[in-house]
Amino acid sequence: MDACRNRIGGNLKLENMKTLPREELLKMRDTLCARYDAVRTLGLRLDMSRGKPSPEGLDCSLELLDVLGSKSDLHCETGEDVRNYGLFDGIPEVKRLFGEILGVPPEQIIVGGNSSLNAMYDCVGRALLLGVYGGKQPWVKQGPLKFLCPVPGYDRHFAITEQFGFELVSIPMDENGPDMDEVERLVNHDPSVKGIWCVPKYGNPTGIVYSDETVRRFARLKPAADDFRIFWDNAYFVHDLYPDRPHTLLNIFDACKEEGSEDMVYEFMSMSKISFSGGGLSCLAASPNNVAWLRKQMSFQTLGFDKINQLRHAHFYKNRETLLRHMAVLADILRPKFEAVLRIFDENLSGTGIAQWTRPEGGYFISVDVLPGCAKRVVALCKEAGVTLTGAGAAFPYGRDPQDQNIRIAPTYPSLGDLCQAAELFCLCVRLAAAEKLLEGAV
Amino acid sequence: MDACRNRIGGNLKLENMKTLPREELLKMRDTLCARYDAVRTLGLRLDMSRGKPSPEGLDCSLELLDVLGSKSDLHCETGEDVRNYGLFDGIPEVKRLFGEILGVPPEQIIVGGNSSLNAMYDCVGRALLLGVYGGKQPWVKQGPLKFLCPVPGYDRHFAITEQFGFELVSIPMDENGPDMDEVERLVNHDPSVKGIWCVPKYGNPTGIVYSDETVRRFARLKPAADDFRIFWDNAYFVHDLYPDRPHTLLNIFDACKEEGSEDMVYEFMSMSKISFSGGGLSCLAASPNNVAWLRKQMSFQTLGFDKINQLRHAHFYKNRETLLRHMAVLADILRPKFEAVLRIFDENLSGTGIAQWTRPEGGYFISVDVLPGCAKRVVALCKEAGVTLTGAGAAFPYGRDPQDQNIRIAPTYPSLGDLCQAAELFCLCVRLAAAEKLLEGAV
Repeated sequence: MDACRNRIGGNLKLENMKTLPREELLKMRDTLCARYDAVRTLGLRLDMSRGKPSPEGLDCSLELLDVLGSKSDLHCETGEDVRNYGLFDGIPEVKRLFGEILGVPPEQIIVGGNSSLNAMYDCVGRALLLGVYGGKQPWVKQGPLKFLCPVPGYDRHFAITEQFGFELVSIPMDENGPDMDEVERLVNHDPSVKGIWCVPKYGNPTGIVYSDETVRRFARLKPAADDFRIFWDNAYFVHDLYPDRPHTLLNIFDACKEEGSEDMVYEFMSMSKISFSGGGLSCLAASPNNVAWLRKQMSFQTLGFDKINQLRHAHFYKNRETLLRHMAVLADILRPKFEAVLRIFDENLSGTGIAQWTRPEGGYFISVDVLPGCAKRVVALCKEAGVTLTGAGAAFPYGRDPQDQNIRIAPTYPSLGDLCQAAELFCLCVRLAAAEKLLEGAV
Repeated sequence: MDACRNRIGGNLKLENMKTLPREELLKMRDTLCARYDAVRTLGLRLDMSRGKPSPEGLDCSLELLDVLGSKSDLHCETGEDVRNYGLFDGIPEVKRLFGEILGVPPEQIIVGGNSSLNAMYDCVGRALLLGVYGGKQPWVKQGPLKFLCPVPGYDRHFAITEQFGFELVSIPMDENGPDMDEVERLVNHDPSVKGIWCVPKYGNPTGIVYSDETVRRFARLKPAADDFRIFWDNAYFVHDLYPDRPHTLLNIFDACKEEGSEDMVYEFMSMSKISFSGGGLSCLAASPNNVAWLRKQMSFQTLGFDKINQLRHAHFYKNRETLLRHMAVLADILRPKFEAVLRIFDENLSGTGIAQWTRPEGGYFISVDVLPGCAKRVVALCKEAGVTLTGAGAAFPYGRDPQDQNIRIAPTYPSLGDLCQAAELFCLCVRLAAAEKLLEGAV
């Protein structure tokens, strides 16, 4: 691929660095150092820190802006003028669209503003101050509280509950999702555990899709707290990189219905990585009991979110089928980026014994584990050479990775050319940091 | 005026009902009853309950929808793509526009979502859970708290603080604003008083504009609490019915600067009654200290509000001058409605001794005081005859008007013809309720 011809890190032997004799390691470090110094002079300015859509991806929704104009009918299908107050939980056509793609009845949908993060923040805030359906007291009246954080996970999730003073409890993850033995042990026996953050499909940053059994075990939880909630952030539910073979996630509400546990779940979804991050819609799906309760609470908060933008989205994305077609177009933009990064990782790191990485088939991230104690060093080395990564440790509660080994790669925003440069530099830094660490004899 | 020819309540003598002999009062009640029964058969279906813009008013901003299309430049003036994440406190051109119309530097502006009510709700919620700049503790850690509510006032303000468990303390109002002796007595001596709700210009529902001296006394407050805030909801700051002679409100930040008390004020503003109630922008203006504090708190809440809609507004309303021209067009739609209602009140109620009303020169409401103990009855009579008014007592904390005499009239939404019918019915009901009450001998 032309864009990826510039070989920053190539031509280094792929041998297991852990078993190299000290002398060879010294030589390798010097070679890596020289190469790193050369790269620094290139004056790169690349940002792989956040999961942002690319300009080309955003262009795919440009015509959303033409859907409503001054000559358009500005009434929703039930006749209300979307320009005026009213329908604070969303217009019916968007509730139907979101219900259809999430597999829940439209009555269980609340359409929000442009930020699902804000919707989650609000749900935590309201639970703290006002309580949740079925709970005896607002969370804030109940003394020290805990929130479960499967790791590595989404830093902004953890940050909400950290800001509000929860004790964040890390839960290990494997390829099926969170360690459910641990989740059950904590949720079912400790009433101070009030919630858990989940990104169940193509999780941030691992790309893991929860297995059916994991989803069922969530549905079977018997919380010690009467006001426990699963925050099910289905952010990447239609973000398949290979739309012809999408991963499927068991519908949590279907699983819960069998167990009578529907009230335990708040599901979130967002159009930010479908239409525009700076002008999309958010969605909250919940049980009828929760929706009735939330509608009542929210009626104090707002007279409604932007219904004009809701009507725009309803007209443009229409239904599940047309929306999935749109996602396939976005996948064509994203897939080459993921594949390029993975190819560069393979070419530069496989067999070295110093890094492992995920091969996600959807979502927005790749998760890399480098040698323990090396993640911060890698991020610093990249930064110094002009490539900004997500801060090391960001995917862990309090920003502290106990092993200092996890790094989140966000390949969606940069152009393919920039991305390849950045990925190669990253590999070089991973090797350099590993050489330094191995020479310390600390691993 | 043709639209107002249908005389539901006309041709009744305008004599002081309070001094009528009992026999004449009985006769009058019977006449009013007969007329009321006749009106009931008309099957009216009119809603004067909420301050909603009319369809004609909304039409004035229709071209806002054409400003941005798929061919537009979608970067704000500092070069950021408004479609993507970032600039969570607003794009620079909107900060400048809002700063210009409010008379504060753009750095003191935070542009929010489409609802200023939500912005206020968020400020109360964050103060409760996280505290405010300069405060030692989050409000929620400080035991029973009070919030001051000048009455009559805006029901949704009071409802926010009622939902969050504050004790709501009524403050009487006169033509200059709240009773500042009482405000000073409470704010300056009681640390449990955490805030006060103000609509300083064309207040909801009275239409009162705070006098310069009132604003200065606000600026001179020396709160006993280190975390007291004035919630200055400048909702109607450019909503003059007579744009050639607008009322002026002293700039609270100018007044505070002289006293060094800028950190005491959160000012709110909204485009909901300028562009679209269902798709506008909200604004929070605050001191540099508060803005820095709020920006930090809000960075946990959202990655940003809808910047595409912000750019749309910036392009369409441009600057203070063009925005004021737009308001003059809206005033031409609103003024005849206010004047028609006031004329009908004059023709049907003046000299009767049973009602007093405000004659606002801006804003969205007229406030009527009927005989004590009659407001609920008037609202019920109107309802039964097909005209929905704001619930009696709504303008008071807990929805309880101690005198049961205040009624809020919202003349903005109905057509002129509907409005005249509704206003005449209202006068009829005011007289009927007064006759009933006077016959009880209870007044």
